[in-house]
Amino acid sequence: MKYAVLATWKMAEEGTKKAAKLLAEGKDCGEAVIEGIAMVEDNPAFHSVGYGGRPNAEGRVFLDGGFMNGDTLHFGAVGSVEGFRSAVRIAASLQDGDANNFLVGEGAERYAEAHGFERRDNVTAETLELYEKEKERLKELSAYDGHDTVCFLALDQSGSLCAATSTSGLFMKQPGRIGDTPLPGVGYYADSKIGAAAATGMGEEIMKGALSYAAVRFLKDGLSAQEAAEKAVSELNDTLVERNGYANPMSLIVLAKDGSYGIGTNITFTYCYASDEEEATVHEIIVERE
Amino acid sequence: MKYAVLATWKMAEEGTKKAAKLLAEGKDCGEAVIEGIAMVEDNPAFHSVGYGGRPNAEGRVFLDGGFMNGDTLHFGAVGSVEGFRSAVRIAASLQDGDANNFLVGEGAERYAEAHGFERRDNVTAETLELYEKEKERLKELSAYDGHDTVCFLALDQSGSLCAATSTSGLFMKQPGRIGDTPLPGVGYYADSKIGAAAATGMGEEIMKGALSYAAVRFLKDGLSAQEAAEKAVSELNDTLVERNGYANPMSLIVLAKDGSYGIGTNITFTYCYASDEEEATVHEIIVERE
Repeated sequence: MKYAVLATWKMAEEGTKKAAKLLAEGKDCGEAVIEGIAMVEDNPAFHSVGYGGRPNAEGRVFLDGGFMNGDTLHFGAVGSVEGFRSAVRIAASLQDGDANNFLVGEGAERYAEAHGFERRDNVTAETLELYEKEKERLKELSAYDGHDTVCFLALDQSGSLCAATSTSGLFMKQPGRIGDTPLPGVGYYADSKIGAAAATGMGEEIMKGALSYAAVRFLKDGLSAQEAAEKAVSELNDTLVERNGYANPMSLIVLAKDGSYGIGTNITFTYCYASDEEEATVHEIIVERE
Repeated sequence: MKYAVLATWKMAEEGTKKAAKLLAEGKDCGEAVIEGIAMVEDNPAFHSVGYGGRPNAEGRVFLDGGFMNGDTLHFGAVGSVEGFRSAVRIAASLQDGDANNFLVGEGAERYAEAHGFERRDNVTAETLELYEKEKERLKELSAYDGHDTVCFLALDQSGSLCAATSTSGLFMKQPGRIGDTPLPGVGYYADSKIGAAAATGMGEEIMKGALSYAAVRFLKDGLSAQEAAEKAVSELNDTLVERNGYANPMSLIVLAKDGSYGIGTNITFTYCYASDEEEATVHEIIVERE
C-alpha cells in the first residue's frame, strides 16, 4: 500500500477521511494524525476527547495527549492539561529536542500559553449535566465509563509511520490522574521500520503491560499486524485474569509498515481504516464479556 | 537464592543493606524497596533524589516516583510533585484500586496532603547554590547532568518481586517535565513469575523504547538476566544511533525471579547488589563513550 490510516472508535470516521485525504495528497503522516485527531477534539458530540470531554471528580475537563515520530522515535506528550483546545497539537509540538518532551499539569499549561496554543474551556453544558447526573451515583461505583481515547496511526507515501492520541481521560477521575494515553510505549508507539500501535480502554490496565510497545515488538519478531495485536491483548488480558481474577477493557490498533493492520480487543470495539486501496470504513468487532 | 536486592548507583549502598536486612527477616519485597529508596531520598548528599535534589529551571525541586507489585502487576506513580518528603511512599500508596494509580502535579500534591504524607521543602542551600552557579551556563547548553534515578528491585522469601523508583529528575528541567521514572513499563516493571527491571539515565531516551518492559519481555523469552539487560540497552542504543546519530546515557538493572541479575548500560555505571549468598556490594561497570 502507498498509504494507510487506522484510528480507534467510530468517532474517528470524519478524521480518518481527512487524514486519508492528506496522505493521498502526499502529506506527512504527522500532519495526517494530528489533523485527524483535531477533528475529534473539536466535536462536542464525542464525550471522551477535547471539547465536551468527560469531567473529572470535580466537574472539570483535563486532557492528555501524545505523539510519536516513527522515523526518529522522538515523542511529545502532555498530561492533565486544562483550558486548551488541542492536547495533540501541544503534545506534537514537544517532540523536538532531547529533553522536556513530556510535560504535565501547570507546567504544561504554562508551556502551551507561552507557545500560543489556542485556549478553550472544554466544559460544555452537556459535560456539566453529565457530571451533576452521575456524581452521586458514581461515588458508590468503581468509576468507569469513558475508555474512549482517540488514537490515530498513519503510514505516509514516504514510508514513515506516526502515532498520536488524545483523551479527556477516565470519567470522574481524581485530580491529576493520567492514564496510558500520554505515555510513549504504553498508550502509543511508532517505529517506521517496523510498525505502529496505540491503545484505548482502561488506562491503568494498559499500563500494566506496555501494550503498544509489546505489539510493535511482536511485529519485529515476525508476527503479522493481526497476530501482534491479538497476542499483545490476549497475553495481558490472560495474565491479569490469572493474577487478579479479571481484566478491565482494553483495545489495541496495530499498523504494520506495509500498511496492513490488526486489532486486539477484549470488548466490543469500533475502528476506522482507510488506505489508497480502501475508502474510509468503520468496522466493528463484537466481543461478548462474561 | 532465597532473597535478593539490586539497586542503581553507589548512593544506594546503605539502602541496599537495609533492604537486604528486611528481606533476611522475611519482610515483603515492597517494604524492602520502599525503605531502601527512602534512605536515599532522605540523604541530602545525593543530589538527584528527594531532599537536596537537583533543581528545575526555576530553582525548585519536583519529584517523580513509581512502584510496581510483581504479583498483581498493580502500580502506583507520581510525577512533578513538590514539597513532600518521599515520592516513593506516595507512589506506592497509589497501587490499590483499579483507577487513579498515576497522579501528577497539583492533583498528586492534594492527594498526598489529604493522606497525611510528610511535607518537606527539598530545596537545600546546596540546591540553590548549584542552581545559581549553573543557571547561566546551562542556558547555553543542552541541559543534562542528572540522570541518577534511584531504582530498587527486590525478590523476597515468598518469591514475590517488586520494583520502585525515585528522582528529582533532570537538572534544570522545564516546569512540569516528567521522565521515565514514574512510567510503568518504561522506568520500571515487575512480574513475580518472570523478573523485574528498572532504568536510569536520560529519561526521554529510555521512553523511546519502553526499556524496563523490553528487558522483562526478553527474560520471558528465555534470556538470562544479563542477556536481557544487555539486549534491551544495546538494541535501543543502536536504533537511536542509527536514526539520530547518537544515543544519550541509559542504564538498566534486571533481577530474574531466581535472584540472578544483569546490567545493561551505555555509560560507566555503579550499582549495588545483595542476596542471602552475598553481602551488599557496590559494583562498577566502566564504559568508554566516544
